[in-house]
Amino acid sequence: MLLKSSISFQSPLSKRTDTIFPRQELSVRVIPRPSAVLASKNIQRRFGIRGVMEVEKVRIVAREKQIMVEKQGDAVRAMKAAKLPQEDIEKAVNDLKNLKLELQELQAKLSVEGDAASLSKEAFRQAVNNTLERRLFYIPSFKIYRGVAGLYDYGPPGCAVKANVISYWRQHFALEENMLEVDCPCVTPEEVLKASGHVDKFTDLMVKDEKSGMCYRADHLLKDYCKEKLEKDPLLPVEKVNELKQVLAVLDELSAEVLGQKIKEYGITAPDTNNPLSDPYPFNLMFATSIGPSGASPGYLRPETAQGIFVNFKDLYYYNGNKLPFAAAQIGQAFRNEISPRQGLLRVREFTLAEIEHFVNPDDKSHSKFKNVADLEFLIYSREEQMALKQPVKLRLGDAVAKGTINNETLGYFIGRTFLFLTTLGIEKERLRFRQHLQNEMAHYACDCWDAEIECSYGWIECVGLADRSAYDLKAHTEKSGVPLVAHETYAEPRMVEKLVIIPAKRELGLAFKKNQKMIVEALEAMNEVEAMDLKARLESEGQAPFEVCTLGQTVTLTKNMVSISKEIKKEYQRIFTPSVIEPSFGIGRIIYCLFEHCFYQRSNKGGDEQLNVFRFPPLIAPIKCTVFPLVQNEKYEATAQLISKSLTAVGISHKIDMTGTSIGKRYARTDELGVPFAITVDYETTVTIRERDSKDQIRVSVEEVASVVKEVTEGQSTWADVLWKYPAHTSNSADE
Amino acid sequence: MLLKSSISFQSPLSKRTDTIFPRQELSVRVIPRPSAVLASKNIQRRFGIRGVMEVEKVRIVAREKQIMVEKQGDAVRAMKAAKLPQEDIEKAVNDLKNLKLELQELQAKLSVEGDAASLSKEAFRQAVNNTLERRLFYIPSFKIYRGVAGLYDYGPPGCAVKANVISYWRQHFALEENMLEVDCPCVTPEEVLKASGHVDKFTDLMVKDEKSGMCYRADHLLKDYCKEKLEKDPLLPVEKVNELKQVLAVLDELSAEVLGQKIKEYGITAPDTNNPLSDPYPFNLMFATSIGPSGASPGYLRPETAQGIFVNFKDLYYYNGNKLPFAAAQIGQAFRNEISPRQGLLRVREFTLAEIEHFVNPDDKSHSKFKNVADLEFLIYSREEQMALKQPVKLRLGDAVAKGTINNETLGYFIGRTFLFLTTLGIEKERLRFRQHLQNEMAHYACDCWDAEIECSYGWIECVGLADRSAYDLKAHTEKSGVPLVAHETYAEPRMVEKLVIIPAKRELGLAFKKNQKMIVEALEAMNEVEAMDLKARLESEGQAPFEVCTLGQTVTLTKNMVSISKEIKKEYQRIFTPSVIEPSFGIGRIIYCLFEHCFYQRSNKGGDEQLNVFRFPPLIAPIKCTVFPLVQNEKYEATAQLISKSLTAVGISHKIDMTGTSIGKRYARTDELGVPFAITVDYETTVTIRERDSKDQIRVSVEEVASVVKEVTEGQSTWADVLWKYPAHTSNSADE
Repeated sequence: MLLKSSISFQSPLSKRTDTIFPRQELSVRVIPRPSAVLASKNIQRRFGIRGVMEVEKVRIVAREKQIMVEKQGDAVRAMKAAKLPQEDIEKAVNDLKNLKLELQELQAKLSVEGDAASLSKEAFRQAVNNTLERRLFYIPSFKIYRGVAGLYDYGPPGCAVKANVISYWRQHFALEENMLEVDCPCVTPEEVLKASGHVDKFTDLMVKDEKSGMCYRADHLLKDYCKEKLEKDPLLPVEKVNELKQVLAVLDELSAEVLGQKIKEYGITAPDTNNPLSDPYPFNLMFATSIGPSGASPGYLRPETAQGIFVNFKDLYYYNGNKLPFAAAQIGQAFRNEISPRQGLLRVREFTLAEIEHFVNPDDKSHSKFKNVADLEFLIYSREEQMALKQPVKLRLGDAVAKGTINNETLGYFIGRTFLFLTTLGIEKERLRFRQHLQNEMAHYACDCWDAEIECSYGWIECVGLADRSAYDLKAHTEKSGVPLVAHETYAEPRMVEKLVIIPAKRELGLAFKKNQKMIVEALEAMNEVEAMDLKARLESEGQAPFEVCTLGQTVTLTKNMVSISKEIKKEYQRIFTPSVIEPSFGIGRIIYCLFEHCFYQRSNKGGDEQLNVFRFPPLIAPIKCTVFPLVQNEKYEATAQLISKSLTAVGISHKIDMTGTSIGKRYARTDELGVPFAITVDYETTVTIRERDSKDQIRVSVEEVASVVKEVTEGQSTWADVLWKYPAHTSNSADE
Repeated sequence: MLLKSSISFQSPLSKRTDTIFPRQELSVRVIPRPSAVLASKNIQRRFGIRGVMEVEKVRIVAREKQIMVEKQGDAVRAMKAAKLPQEDIEKAVNDLKNLKLELQELQAKLSVEGDAASLSKEAFRQAVNNTLERRLFYIPSFKIYRGVAGLYDYGPPGCAVKANVISYWRQHFALEENMLEVDCPCVTPEEVLKASGHVDKFTDLMVKDEKSGMCYRADHLLKDYCKEKLEKDPLLPVEKVNELKQVLAVLDELSAEVLGQKIKEYGITAPDTNNPLSDPYPFNLMFATSIGPSGASPGYLRPETAQGIFVNFKDLYYYNGNKLPFAAAQIGQAFRNEISPRQGLLRVREFTLAEIEHFVNPDDKSHSKFKNVADLEFLIYSREEQMALKQPVKLRLGDAVAKGTINNETLGYFIGRTFLFLTTLGIEKERLRFRQHLQNEMAHYACDCWDAEIECSYGWIECVGLADRSAYDLKAHTEKSGVPLVAHETYAEPRMVEKLVIIPAKRELGLAFKKNQKMIVEALEAMNEVEAMDLKARLESEGQAPFEVCTLGQTVTLTKNMVSISKEIKKEYQRIFTPSVIEPSFGIGRIIYCLFEHCFYQRSNKGGDEQLNVFRFPPLIAPIKCTVFPLVQNEKYEATAQLISKSLTAVGISHKIDMTGTSIGKRYARTDELGVPFAITVDYETTVTIRERDSKDQIRVSVEEVASVVKEVTEGQSTWADVLWKYPAHTSNSADE
C-alpha cells in the first residue's frame, strides 16, 4: 500500500495509524537520514573500518574503567560512613585517584581519535541516568518482581517535576487559550479505534523464534545485523558494504515480504537461541482487553488521547457557542504494547500525552494572536534544507510563515508557543529545532507537519508533533458513527449554489420493499454526486437500475418512479463543512527526560577530588523549591526551622527540612542533585541565609521575610539578581562542599 | 472461606480483594443495614403495603409530569431562540405554567403522604444531572457510538473541577505532609496482583443467560426480584414477606451455592429474554490484557494505585533516610470491569483514585500533628452505635481517639484531615459522616477501618476509605517477591533476645547435593521457628529427615551433620520489622459527584416564572473563577474587557469573556449554572463592577485593580465580605435575570 510504505520515521507520540507506522528506534534515527549516512561516511573516511574498530575497543575499555571508578567511589563513601580507620580510607582514595587518571587517559585517547563526542555522550548519559535512578526520579516499575521492559515509575522528585510540567502546560496552553479540556477514559471500544484506523494499521512487523516463540521486531534484527557486519567485519568487500548501507537507508520502507527475504538471505536467526525465525507479520501495538464480562465487546487501551476529543466534537462545538475556531485539549495516559522496548526512558509502553486539537475553518487558518509570536527566532529545519543536506537555520517565525515554509498562521502560532513552552521549562534553545516532515513522512491528507526535536545523548528526539491534519479525523468518525461532525457558517449574504436534490418516492419504495423501505431511503439520500448522477443516467436510459444498500447487505432493483434526482440552483444562507484540525501533541515523558539531560551538569567539590551532580531546573519545575537546614543540631535552630517550614507551607512553597548532623556542604550537595533551587540555612534565630543553587551566592534575610522572598524568586515575580541587590550578601565557605 | 463470607459492603474505591468483595450496589445500601430494615418497616407501619403502592403510583405520575415540564421548557426556549411569533410563545409558556401547577399538586400530594423526601430526592437528582450533562460537566464516553456503560468523560467544566480537586488534594495532603508521591503505570503484570490477592479474589458472582449469553450480577437479580415482590404484590403472605426481607438483609453474605439455589427456587430468569440462567460463578473484575507480543506475560489494568506504592517500599524507605513514619501517595487511574454498571456517575469502570500509604512502627501509631486536628467535631458513627441501631453522633476527634473509638492517633489524624479536605471543597458538614466498619466488614488482619460517607440523592455514599491495614500488604509482597520489605529500628540500648540460629553445613550439603546446594542452604535459612525446631527434633531422634525445597520443587533427605539448629541468647542492637500501613484512599470521581449535589441549588428568575440553576462552588474548585462581560456590545467596552482578560491571565485566574449581545441577566444565569463565583461587568471604561454569584452583591472597582481583587477573593486572602466593606457597593437590577 502506498500510504504504508511512504512512512519512514517512528513517532515518539502515539499517533493516528495512517500517519505513523513505528518501525525504527529513535536512538539511531540521526535525522534526517541523508545526513546520517553522510556522518557515518565521515567517520570512515577519517579512520577507515579498522580505525573505527580501534576506537570501539578503546571505548569498551573506557566504559569498563568508568564503572570501576564509580564502584570505587561508592566503596570510599561507604568506608567513610562506617568510620573505618583513616589509613584504610586513604588507601582506597588513592586507588580511586589512580583509576580516575587511567580513565582520563583513555578519554583523552578517544578525544585524540576524534571520537570522544560519542564516548562523552554515553558517559554523560550514564552520569545523568545514575543520578536519576539513585535519587528516585525514576524507578523501574515492579522492580522487586524483576520489572517489566518499557514500564517505569516516577519516584518522588520525578513525580513532582512531572506534575509541575503538566501544571505549566495547562497554564501556558489550556488556560491562556481558553481551550476546552476534556478527560476521557483509557479503555476504548473497538469501534472507535476501527474508525480511526488503529485497529487495522497501528502495527509493527514482527518475527517469532520458531522454537521458543520469542518475538522480535523484524527491522531491529535486520538493522542489528547490518550494523554489526559493517562495524566488526573489516574484510567485507566494498559491494557488500554498499549493499548493507543501502538496506539501512531504506529500512523503514521495507515491506514484510522484502524484510523476510533479507532475513532469510542473510541467515539471520533468533539472537537469544540461534533458532530459525518465522516470516515477518504485523503485530498490533495496542493493548487489547474486553469490556464487560461477556467477551462480546472488545476494547483497547487508547494509543493516544486525541480520539476522545474527536468523538466529542459535536458537543464541544455546541459548548463553544457553535463558533470556530476553538481548541480542545486532553492530558492523560496512552499505551503502546511495544514488541521489545529497547531505549530506556524514551521508549515506554505507557506514557502521558498532552494533546490539543484546534479546529478551524479550512478556508481561514489565520490566527489572531500570531503577531505575539511572529518575532521569535529559532532553529527551523525545512523540508528543502533537509533534502539539500543542509543544516537547520535560525529563522524569524513570522518570515517562515510569510514565505510559506510553515503552511499557515495557526500552525505557526502553535510552533511559536511550543518553543516558548519548552524553553521556559529549561530546554536549551540551541538544542531545540522544528523539523518539517518530508513528503513521504506525511499522510496524503495532511497539509503540513512539524516535529519539535530536542537534542539529547540519544540524538535528536521528536518530543512534540505539530500537524495540520485537515478534516481527516472528523470525517472518519462521521462516516463510521453516522453522526455528522460538522460546522456551520452563516453567510453575510445568501449565495446561489448548484445543489444535488435527491427525493426518494417513499410510497413506491414502501410498496416494493416493505420493511426495507427506510434503509433504502437512507441509502439513496446518502449518495454522493457521482453515484447519484450515474443512477439517474441508468434509470433514464434503462428504466431500472441495480442499487446496492450496504446497510441491508444486498442489491435491490430500482425503477424510475422510485426516486427523483436533479440538480437545482438554490439560494443558500449557510454552509456546512468539516473543520480542519491542527494538532500539537506533546510527549510529556520525553520532554521531561530531555529536560533532565539539559539541566544536568557536574562541578568539583571543595576538595576538588569529587564531581558533584547538579540539576539546574528553573524554580517553575524544580521538584522541591527550597530546603531548610539548621546549621548545627540545636533546639533553637530547629524551632526556627520549623517556624520557617510552616510559613513556607502557608505560601504554598514545597520544601524539605534536613535536621541531620551532616555537614552543611554535604547537605547542599545532596539537594543540588535534586535540583532544589534555594536553600535556607538557619544560623541565627532572627536571620537566616538563602543560597542559590547554581551561583552558590548567599544573602541574609530576616526569619519573617524569608518565605515571601523565596516565594517571589520561585514564582518569578523577582529574579535572583533582584534579591541579591536588595539583601545583604553572606559569604561563607559552607555554600560549597 | 471465612474471610470471603465475612465481607458485606462493596467498596466504591478499588480495594485489596481480601477486604472487599463487591456484591451490592451502593445506591441501595442504606447503611447500616439494621436501620435500613427499620426504615422500610416505618414506611409500612405508616401506610401498609397498599399505602406504599398508592404512593408509588403517584410517584410514577409525578415523574412523567416532571419530564413533560422539562420538555415543554426546552420547547419554549427553542421557540424564543427561533424568534417565533410572540403569540405562539405565549401559548407555550401558558402550557408550561399549567404543567408546573399539576406537578406541584402531585408533589404536594406526595408530601402529604409523607413520602415526598424520596420523590424530591429523585427530582433533585434529575435536575442536577440534567444541568451537569447539558453544561458538559460530564459526557457519556463515545456517545456518537452509543456509549459504553460505566464510562464517562469529564467535559470542560467537569475537567476543570477535577483538576482543581486533585491540585488541592496534592496541596492539602502530599505537600503539607511532605509525602513521597509516585506515579506508576496502569498496566500491571499478573505476578504483582497475584501477590496482592486480586487475581484470585477480586470477583463478583455472575449468572449467564443460557441462550443469549448475556451476563448479570447474581445478587442484583435476586435483589430486584425480592424488592419487586415486596413492593408490587399486595397479596403476599406474611411468611413470604419475612423470607424475602431476610434474603435482602443477608444478600451480601450469600455464597454462590445459596445464591444459585434461591434463583432456581424463585424461578428467576434473564430479565431481557426470560431465558433460564446459569449457576452463579465468580467473574474477576480486573480488565485483562497481555504485555508484549508473545502472550506469555498476562497483565491487568490496576484495580487500585496502592500496589505501586507497596512494591516500591524498599526504595521509598531508603529515600526517606531509612526512617519511619513516612507516607507515600499516588494519584491515578484505576479500573474495574463491572459486570453490569447501573448507577450512573457513581459506579464506573474507570476512575481516578488518590491513595496514601502511611507507614508506621506498629508499636507506635502516635502522630506528632494530631493535636492540630484533635478539636475538630463532626459526625462519627461507631460500630457500637450502628449495632445499637442509633444515629451517628457529633464527637470531638480527640475524644474519639482517647476513648479508643478510633484505634490510634495516626488513623485519627487522617480522619481529621479528610474532614477538613472534604468540607473545604464544599461538602456540607451535616451530610458527611465517618462510619466505622463492622467487624464482619473488615479483613482479619485489619486493626480498624472507617469510611468517609457523604449523603447524596443515592443515600450515604462511601467516598474515602481510611484503614489501618497492619503489615498485611508488605508481608504479602515480601513473601511472593523474596525481597524483604522491612524497616530497622536501632535500639538506644542493646537488648538480650532469644534467637533462632540456623547454620547449614555448606560443605556437607555441597558434597551431597552438588549444584542444588545453594537453594537448599537458602531454604534452610528461610525456615521459621516452628519448622526449624521440628526439623531439629526429627534429625535428633531419627538421624535424618525429609526436607522440602520449594524453589527446587523437590524433597531432599537431610542428615544430622548437614545443619545445626539452636536457640541462643543474643545481644541485639536493632530490630527488623514489617511496618504497619494506614491507608486513606480517596475516590475522586465520587467526591466530585457528591460535591455537585451539595453545591447545586435553584432560585427563581426575576420574573418568577423560571427556576435557575446555580452551583455554589467555592472559588477554590470552581471550574472558571470569573467571567468578563461588556454590558453592551460596544468597541470601547470590548477593548476594556480584553484588557481585563489579559491582566486576569497574568495573575493566573481562569476566566471567560462573553461578548454576545445577550441580556446581562441571562449571561449571569448562564455562568451561575457553571458555578462561576465572580462576574466582572464592564459598564465604564475606567471602573467596572464585580458581582458575587450567591449573594448577587455587586461592588465597583477600578479597571487597574479588578484582577488583583478577583485574585484575592479567589485564592482566599480576602473574603467577599472583606472586599464588600472596602469597595463601594453597586446596585442594579441586572444582577439578576
